[in-house]
Amino acid sequence: MNYDTNNIFAKILRGEIPCHKVYEDDAVLAFMDVMPQADGHTLVIPKAPSRNLLDADPATFEPLMVAVQKVALAVRRAFKAEGILIKQFNEPAAGQTVFHLHVHILPRSEGLELRPHTGKMADHAVLAQHAGLIRTALGD
Amino acid sequence: MNYDTNNIFAKILRGEIPCHKVYEDDAVLAFMDVMPQADGHTLVIPKAPSRNLLDADPATFEPLMVAVQKVALAVRRAFKAEGILIKQFNEPAAGQTVFHLHVHILPRSEGLELRPHTGKMADHAVLAQHAGLIRTALGD
Repeated sequence: MNYDTNNIFAKILRGEIPCHKVYEDDAVLAFMDVMPQADGHTLVIPKAPSRNLLDADPATFEPLMVAVQKVALAVRRAFKAEGILIKQFNEPAAGQTVFHLHVHILPRSEGLELRPHTGKMADHAVLAQHAGLIRTALGD
Repeated sequence: MNYDTNNIFAKILRGEIPCHKVYEDDAVLAFMDVMPQADGHTLVIPKAPSRNLLDADPATFEPLMVAVQKVALAVRRAFKAEGILIKQFNEPAAGQTVFHLHVHILPRSEGLELRPHTGKMADHAVLAQHAGLIRTALGD
């Protein structure tokens, strides 16, 4: 396994591509998935480079998961979700499409199906609004 | 949220119910899912009690994810998987059925669909054999 420094999340970390940021600290960045399977679908990524979980430095995990918990609680609050689904894909056969370790946070409620991954980008004004809701919930 | 000390994983941790163990250390236990969605479907749980990720002590995360990585690499090797899917459910609306924090490790390969969650237990001789394959891979 190798790490491509030109993957889209590496570019986001370098500020070469914008994102709808919801949280950042020394070790991680969290932002809206631009092809959300549910309103509030958020990604948390470590700043340290790794292709996925399989080749990550174990030192990555603590700050990553502390942030996942924090953002998941905020997403639940912001979207009044009944549950939170966490998914993390390793390699294309498991659904990985961007090769920088990332954790999906998906708000879930009974009777509300996840949208299929169509490859269509969501409206940026909506994503910006959703990011704002989560940032507000993080501040509560 | 509250923690029911009589959930099935708490009973497994106390040794009141058997499991097909693949890995154990001071902080975590890993064992075969008895209703596997794919051959090699393994669960990793912290020994510390929490209902799920949302109420877990953040100190739980490092040893948990270090073990998830270790077991995921062994599952990949043991089942010659092309990828690894990690899933973690919080609350019933997100698919959670056992209320002790647990992480699913699912080997994935192109063209191999996940089996639906039928509620039917797998053959224990097969699960024991799969656990043995993963333990061997962990020792490599």
